[in-house]
Amino acid sequence: MIQYLTTDPWRIIEEGFKRKHHRSSESIFSIGNGRFGQRANFEEDYSGPTLQGSYVAGVYYPDKTRVGWWKNGYPEYFAKVLNSINWIGIRIKVEGEDVDFAKCITSNFRRELNMKEGVLIRSFDLEMPSGRIIRAEVKRFCSMADDETAAIRYAITPLNFTGTIRFQPYLDGNVRNHDSNYEEMFWEPLDSSASAGKGVVITRTRKTEFDIAAAMSIEVELNGNVIQPTFHHSQDVFFAENNLEKEIHQGDTIALYKYVGLVSSLNYDRDELKISAEKAAERAHRTGFATMLAMQAESWQKIWDLADIVIEGDDEAQQAIRFNIFHMNQTYTGEDARLNIGPKGFTGEKYGGSTYWDTEAYCLPFYMSTKDQKVARQLLVYRFNQLNKAIENAQKLGFTNGAALYPMVTMNGEECHNEWEITFEEIHRNGAIAYAIYNYVRYTGDAHYLSEYGWDVLLGIARFWSQRVHWSEARKQYVMHGVTGPNEYENNVNNNWYTNYFAKWCIACTMEVMEYLRANDPDALASKIKQYAFDEVNETARWKDIVAHIYLGQMEHSEIRIQHDGFLDKELAPASALPEAQRPINQHWSWDRILRSCYIKQADVLQGMYFFDEDFDKEVIRSNFDFYEPMTVHESSLSPCVHSILASQLGLHEKAYEMYMRTSRLDLDDYNHEAHEGLHITSMAGTWMSIVQGFGGMRVKDGKLTFHPILPAQWKAYSFNVLFRGSVVKVSVDQSGYEVTGL
Amino acid sequence: MIQYLTTDPWRIIEEGFKRKHHRSSESIFSIGNGRFGQRANFEEDYSGPTLQGSYVAGVYYPDKTRVGWWKNGYPEYFAKVLNSINWIGIRIKVEGEDVDFAKCITSNFRRELNMKEGVLIRSFDLEMPSGRIIRAEVKRFCSMADDETAAIRYAITPLNFTGTIRFQPYLDGNVRNHDSNYEEMFWEPLDSSASAGKGVVITRTRKTEFDIAAAMSIEVELNGNVIQPTFHHSQDVFFAENNLEKEIHQGDTIALYKYVGLVSSLNYDRDELKISAEKAAERAHRTGFATMLAMQAESWQKIWDLADIVIEGDDEAQQAIRFNIFHMNQTYTGEDARLNIGPKGFTGEKYGGSTYWDTEAYCLPFYMSTKDQKVARQLLVYRFNQLNKAIENAQKLGFTNGAALYPMVTMNGEECHNEWEITFEEIHRNGAIAYAIYNYVRYTGDAHYLSEYGWDVLLGIARFWSQRVHWSEARKQYVMHGVTGPNEYENNVNNNWYTNYFAKWCIACTMEVMEYLRANDPDALASKIKQYAFDEVNETARWKDIVAHIYLGQMEHSEIRIQHDGFLDKELAPASALPEAQRPINQHWSWDRILRSCYIKQADVLQGMYFFDEDFDKEVIRSNFDFYEPMTVHESSLSPCVHSILASQLGLHEKAYEMYMRTSRLDLDDYNHEAHEGLHITSMAGTWMSIVQGFGGMRVKDGKLTFHPILPAQWKAYSFNVLFRGSVVKVSVDQSGYEVTGL
Repeated sequence: MIQYLTTDPWRIIEEGFKRKHHRSSESIFSIGNGRFGQRANFEEDYSGPTLQGSYVAGVYYPDKTRVGWWKNGYPEYFAKVLNSINWIGIRIKVEGEDVDFAKCITSNFRRELNMKEGVLIRSFDLEMPSGRIIRAEVKRFCSMADDETAAIRYAITPLNFTGTIRFQPYLDGNVRNHDSNYEEMFWEPLDSSASAGKGVVITRTRKTEFDIAAAMSIEVELNGNVIQPTFHHSQDVFFAENNLEKEIHQGDTIALYKYVGLVSSLNYDRDELKISAEKAAERAHRTGFATMLAMQAESWQKIWDLADIVIEGDDEAQQAIRFNIFHMNQTYTGEDARLNIGPKGFTGEKYGGSTYWDTEAYCLPFYMSTKDQKVARQLLVYRFNQLNKAIENAQKLGFTNGAALYPMVTMNGEECHNEWEITFEEIHRNGAIAYAIYNYVRYTGDAHYLSEYGWDVLLGIARFWSQRVHWSEARKQYVMHGVTGPNEYENNVNNNWYTNYFAKWCIACTMEVMEYLRANDPDALASKIKQYAFDEVNETARWKDIVAHIYLGQMEHSEIRIQHDGFLDKELAPASALPEAQRPINQHWSWDRILRSCYIKQADVLQGMYFFDEDFDKEVIRSNFDFYEPMTVHESSLSPCVHSILASQLGLHEKAYEMYMRTSRLDLDDYNHEAHEGLHITSMAGTWMSIVQGFGGMRVKDGKLTFHPILPAQWKAYSFNVLFRGSVVKVSVDQSGYEVTGL
Repeated sequence: MIQYLTTDPWRIIEEGFKRKHHRSSESIFSIGNGRFGQRANFEEDYSGPTLQGSYVAGVYYPDKTRVGWWKNGYPEYFAKVLNSINWIGIRIKVEGEDVDFAKCITSNFRRELNMKEGVLIRSFDLEMPSGRIIRAEVKRFCSMADDETAAIRYAITPLNFTGTIRFQPYLDGNVRNHDSNYEEMFWEPLDSSASAGKGVVITRTRKTEFDIAAAMSIEVELNGNVIQPTFHHSQDVFFAENNLEKEIHQGDTIALYKYVGLVSSLNYDRDELKISAEKAAERAHRTGFATMLAMQAESWQKIWDLADIVIEGDDEAQQAIRFNIFHMNQTYTGEDARLNIGPKGFTGEKYGGSTYWDTEAYCLPFYMSTKDQKVARQLLVYRFNQLNKAIENAQKLGFTNGAALYPMVTMNGEECHNEWEITFEEIHRNGAIAYAIYNYVRYTGDAHYLSEYGWDVLLGIARFWSQRVHWSEARKQYVMHGVTGPNEYENNVNNNWYTNYFAKWCIACTMEVMEYLRANDPDALASKIKQYAFDEVNETARWKDIVAHIYLGQMEHSEIRIQHDGFLDKELAPASALPEAQRPINQHWSWDRILRSCYIKQADVLQGMYFFDEDFDKEVIRSNFDFYEPMTVHESSLSPCVHSILASQLGLHEKAYEMYMRTSRLDLDDYNHEAHEGLHITSMAGTWMSIVQGFGGMRVKDGKLTFHPILPAQWKAYSFNVLFRGSVVKVSVDQSGYEVTGL
């Protein structure tokens, strides 16, 4: 754990510049509006370690795959989220002295993420090498109300001198990804222009040909009054700038406003891009900073009205849950069916791609309960739209007859990942995608989705499992070899319980949905059977046989499900016995040692029991929790939330709280020493689940919500809302009991 | 199988230019002298597909590792063999028309590798786009007698015109590797100069700073008489050339001799390189082509006197065994302890590195029996010299107390390979390295090696195994998890029988050698115990326990050893059932499908039974052969020879012959469609073993050679020699029986 941030219910605060943690802060203080996002890089020059990140949703580059040893079936490229035009840049000169934040002496530094209103605020005194000291205050936000705009206010006050302050606001498209397999430039310049107080830069991604246009419009105030300085402007390939300077008296304040418009060819014709960006910047300028800020607060208030979770008596927990909800909303608003939820959102480049099984397994419930149900539906349709690619993907691996294997990582439905043990073997992702359909229909009651899109996806997935298992003559059962389960610290194992269970469930579910359609929408079913050349008799005969005879490992004389063949043959020892200096083990141990150990990266058997808790008695879940939990090192962000939920269910309050804090403060307290690479956005939805499904015990049964709330000992009270079939339900829990009310 | 070469007992012949197979021919017709080697690239320009390859033994570049996802313990670099200065280049102009072989019409093309004398000969008629036809004959060789020199004779006869022939012999250091992880240039230019009839180029590898100097000296003959044309010369960075032209009458022959000197900083001080290369070229020039050629034939005669295997009645088999023996001798002569036997020798870049377990498991017996025993000893000392690196390597993976894990691929003792399933898991290589010590002492009787170097290596290896196994409470036995056996079509398996057996054997052997030393050289032992801080009591206690209680899988009610846990759970089917269009499966199936299948890339259990055939009854070997052989696809070059030897031992003559032909003609008939990447040099030693240990049945028992020869039905007779403890033993087998004689 690395703790350097101040606790506050509505704010993330860094008091004093934590130079060593600056890259982590750049992640943590990121801002975005679902359409684009920005790491908390500084506006002014900073020559210290930094990861520059300005991301536009849906814009990616197919970076040529890098492997040591190519294997048949590997994808040609990895879709990378792109660091795009730097729109925040404002160079500063103080009496002819260039400001490099890294080379100045900083005092009174404060960085604040105001989550209530969606604003990043930074204030500091900066002593230049010459001894001149300026005070600065910088605010910026990506507008939620007008998601093509952003605004920055950069105010400077000379503290111990009178002299010239020069601002040089610019747009710079000559940017690179830190993560580029072959150190390639992903962008080419299309256009750039500048005029007094204005500038535009347009760039295009290579290969994918996404165009991005950024425009700026500048205003300057002296002591709160708009002034009209002389703007010098210039442009270059990839680049547009203005610069202006003004003699400022000691104690006076000059403030520069940079209004930004940012649009892409996802939403505009190419020939409209320039004007659209300019219009957006002008629109923002016209609206003005104060009004935009008020609208920003209002937009966020609407989000918080529904999605906020209030925790009393535990500011750390309160801060953390809001931090998670805040970032989820910054990342994905559900307004564009082509987008999805990248594992790092707009906070870093790592993992590229936008869509993992995280979306279905973790994010869907959050969006189902805090947004209109069309948002969740949209996430499902995203996969339906990629069904053909999933079938192609399975064909590449030798499967036939319409079997579909969804990719591990994707932007457009094509597989991006290229480690054989994951790409080809971590096939449980198919299960989560099927489960999401079930989960969505269960929650929303929108059974029509099944005949419209749902069964198509289920059929492809059932066909996949049916081919992926094989009959073992030795066991006289169906087995599944060569898989990687959710616990990626085991590779290429046989009979991963979670995966086998999911295979069985998917096949059974597909048949059940088929029966439902036969009863309720026979025409739709008939047409699909034809469309997919479904050989009902023979295919379902095998399906039934698999459901009846698939091997699911269980310890003798015990309720323990065996994670995979051979697990019990390991040296079993609790993770608590590991020396602290060797944690996280993935940063200290060689891969083979990790694989041989019993340590579990993330919930695996327990993940299955979380999904299918109705199928297992509490005692069974308890036995498995007691067996697996001590060996789980939670080096995946997706792990603690599942443990927290199960612990709540089992009445293990302390464990539930510990795991809640771990999931909710994963990045704030940087448990896994990787916040500098970006935040764990998708697991943030798991944090929300830890409260709502965990402490709150929310479940859906027979079309109704049920709750079994518990109150962690550390809390006085908590409350949350969920949107369920058009109604908002409020759950309030305190020491006296709990209350569920319709709003 | 791809068959386009003419069968001949002493020659490899390509009649008519097989354009499509040119890159394969470039591999097959490669020449070398142990110090350097050269693919059969054309001297003149050739704009068609080609893999240029000029290799100098021991010179490598540490190419930055390329992986998709870095894992702790991966090496920083992969040592690549380098395509170095092009010393064969001779550009040709015919009446002002540049010769590009690919753009001319070729007739009467013949390429011949004369294995008896070690010469590459190429003759052809070439019709230029203008219609002018030249006849050419080109001979070249890398001198075995003076291994710093090579010579080329390039003769041209105008067939249908009289006109100017221009030769432009050059040296070109501006060359690249086809296999470069980041498309880097591996070389930098140091010096180049040219004068009339002479030229020198010196280049240096980046990072490793190996310097290579090539010099040339030119002579020209007209109709057999030396002439003195005007040499124009020029030089450039990386480049030196001469050019000369002469009006040639139709039917006359002009011949250019290019004498080359090639030296490196492995053998000379840097400031001596230039003069040494020049001297070598001049020495060759002075000696003259005819004399050099005679010396070349004489050198090869000496090799053949001992190493030749004569097969009567089967020219394909005869050609093949000589091809294998020829390339082994071109690759490694045993004169330099720093060198080893690269898997592709001097015939391609693939696999980089120079040293794999191939050396100990396959090559050692060949060199033991056909060279002075100091050569084999040198191969062992190579590993002893790298013991500290092997200990460091094991430390990186978390092992302690002097445990040694030799690298999978290496140049200097450091690991180069970077696939976790091989780098970290294919640890059986340690077994072969220990076995080589045992094998060497058994064959040569040089037990002194044990106290000098052998026990040190055995100790490090025994310590490794002792830490690598763990006690399974579930089985009450020692088990070994997470390994890849010789059969690389299974990854990360538990209890690979071969590896477990080897672990047990290594530990037992180490203890046995310790007892031998205690009895015969107690001082040496005492000093080593101290040197390696060997805790005899505790370490051997665990060793003994492991030897007594290690798990070795065996099928119930059967003698079948189980390749690894779970193997019997697979769908077992013979490889003969696979459609031909899907072979080799590694070029047609995705990796996960290969892993899930029962198909065996190369002998695994059977490899163990080959090494330890004294430990198993013939019936046991037979059961395992019958079980595993049908599932073996032999997609490793190292596989058929082992099957051939076992088949001979089991009296399965047809199978032994089939496997012999497959191993011996693997590249000539390109079974695995990969000859274009280079030849399978190390498996060529396995071909030799197939005859000597297979058909000949040679074994060593109690310090004596024994033979149990069989005669394949396809052969009239065969004979071979082996050098054993200073004596040459000749074995002759024909239909009437066999004879073993001392020569």
